[in-house]
Amino acid sequence: MRTYLDCIPCFFNQALRAGRMVTGDEKKLKRLLDEVGRVLRDIPVENTPPETGMLIYEKISRITGEYDPYKEIKRKNISKILRLYPALKKEVEKSDDRLLTAIRLAIAGNVIDLGVNKKFDIEEEIDIVLKKDFAIFDYEKFKRYLDKTDEILYIGDNAGESVFDRILIEEIKKPVTYVVREIPVINDVTREDAINAGIDKVARILSSGTSAPGTVLKTCSSEFMEIYGRSKFIISKGQGNYEGLSEEKGLIFFLLKAKCWVIAADIGVKEGDIVLKGINI
Amino acid sequence: MRTYLDCIPCFFNQALRAGRMVTGDEKKLKRLLDEVGRVLRDIPVENTPPETGMLIYEKISRITGEYDPYKEIKRKNISKILRLYPALKKEVEKSDDRLLTAIRLAIAGNVIDLGVNKKFDIEEEIDIVLKKDFAIFDYEKFKRYLDKTDEILYIGDNAGESVFDRILIEEIKKPVTYVVREIPVINDVTREDAINAGIDKVARILSSGTSAPGTVLKTCSSEFMEIYGRSKFIISKGQGNYEGLSEEKGLIFFLLKAKCWVIAADIGVKEGDIVLKGINI
Repeated sequence: MRTYLDCIPCFFNQALRAGRMVTGDEKKLKRLLDEVGRVLRDIPVENTPPETGMLIYEKISRITGEYDPYKEIKRKNISKILRLYPALKKEVEKSDDRLLTAIRLAIAGNVIDLGVNKKFDIEEEIDIVLKKDFAIFDYEKFKRYLDKTDEILYIGDNAGESVFDRILIEEIKKPVTYVVREIPVINDVTREDAINAGIDKVARILSSGTSAPGTVLKTCSSEFMEIYGRSKFIISKGQGNYEGLSEEKGLIFFLLKAKCWVIAADIGVKEGDIVLKGINI
Repeated sequence: MRTYLDCIPCFFNQALRAGRMVTGDEKKLKRLLDEVGRVLRDIPVENTPPETGMLIYEKISRITGEYDPYKEIKRKNISKILRLYPALKKEVEKSDDRLLTAIRLAIAGNVIDLGVNKKFDIEEEIDIVLKKDFAIFDYEKFKRYLDKTDEILYIGDNAGESVFDRILIEEIKKPVTYVVREIPVINDVTREDAINAGIDKVARILSSGTSAPGTVLKTCSSEFMEIYGRSKFIISKGQGNYEGLSEEKGLIFFLLKAKCWVIAADIGVKEGDIVLKGINI
């Protein structure tokens, strides 16, 4: 997905929000916003938003000297959702369609997005997403391709969400490679977070090599690109990965909640909608 | 009021919204946002927001070649509210406190602010503001000073709102000088708009000389500054004028609806609150 002009004011909001996580120094924050303005001027709108996001979060680190402003929040999110894990597993067990319930939960977890200026209550979100109609629902195709595949590349999104991903991986019952970001960016999942969430017990963990808040292929490692290139079944979680991969040629199923109207419009749904959308299916 | 860091993303949103009123050309709009970034970098946060707004709206005019993007909308707003005028006058006549009802209506009109990204329904707004509690209510002092004064400087805000201002001026029953912007900026009231609203029948119209979307004194004409300097009773409508005048030393009553949380916080109220606030009273 390209960068829409509406993403530009949003980048400033994101920078300000993330900058304030680490400093109250107005001068530093103003400098940060000035730098963001400078970065944005040189960026073509053909770039994907997480490509720009990467440059912005690099500026935040450089100006504030803090490389992981969301560290503590990520840890708290993971702990909280690990406490819910037994109840969530029961939810799956008692349901008529275990796989679908696990997919719904994996989407509920997608709301823990601190790049987006939305408040959320995760317990409430779970209740909503367990009942909500999908705006795009390529579930039959998802199941058909899943039956035929013998391994899955599962691209994670935020840290807390990875506990929900673990539940879906447990239902998939096939070998899964779980993709994380190389270094901390916003509250996206890193190797350390994935291990904290217990992903290492159910999947092999692989870094995409990127420091972008999304899968921006040109910034990924050659190791990742090789595995990505031969993957026949990819699950991509969340907005940042959608933004990076929406125009790819492979078989990808996007699982997300559209939390921003620009991305919702790009997908062809409404803000707040939940989506299980396959491309090249 | 100084520029808060939160105003910066908002300036980009305003520029994009106003730019889109006159062009769909993405390249021009991107250039506009780039130019806004350049302007903002050089602006000290000590400046008031309308001072920066002025520079931004100048950029819009220069890049798009359109000097009055809101012309048609302003005309429609005025016509619509003139059609409501007889009913609004009846509302005042049947009320127990005519002056207060006229003040409430003047605040209801303040919602027609196209610099703020909020949808509004003016008829609904009138019903709400006629009943709503004031968050700050310096009404007794307002009446006391009004009794003692023999002329009023009334600083208008948006174009449609000026029809409501006319109703309040008719209740004030003292000589009023009604202040308008020198040239079109957003949907702020100009001399032409004020005449369309019938203000010329009830007050003398005076341009402040500014092209800012608010009363930024250092950009006002010497004619205005002289009259402003000897005014003993000033009514200032809306956010833009508050931003320009909130730290002045004279007697000013601000009448507004706080439509933006940054300004609300500066005043000490909540977003959505209505305010009749006197300073130096």
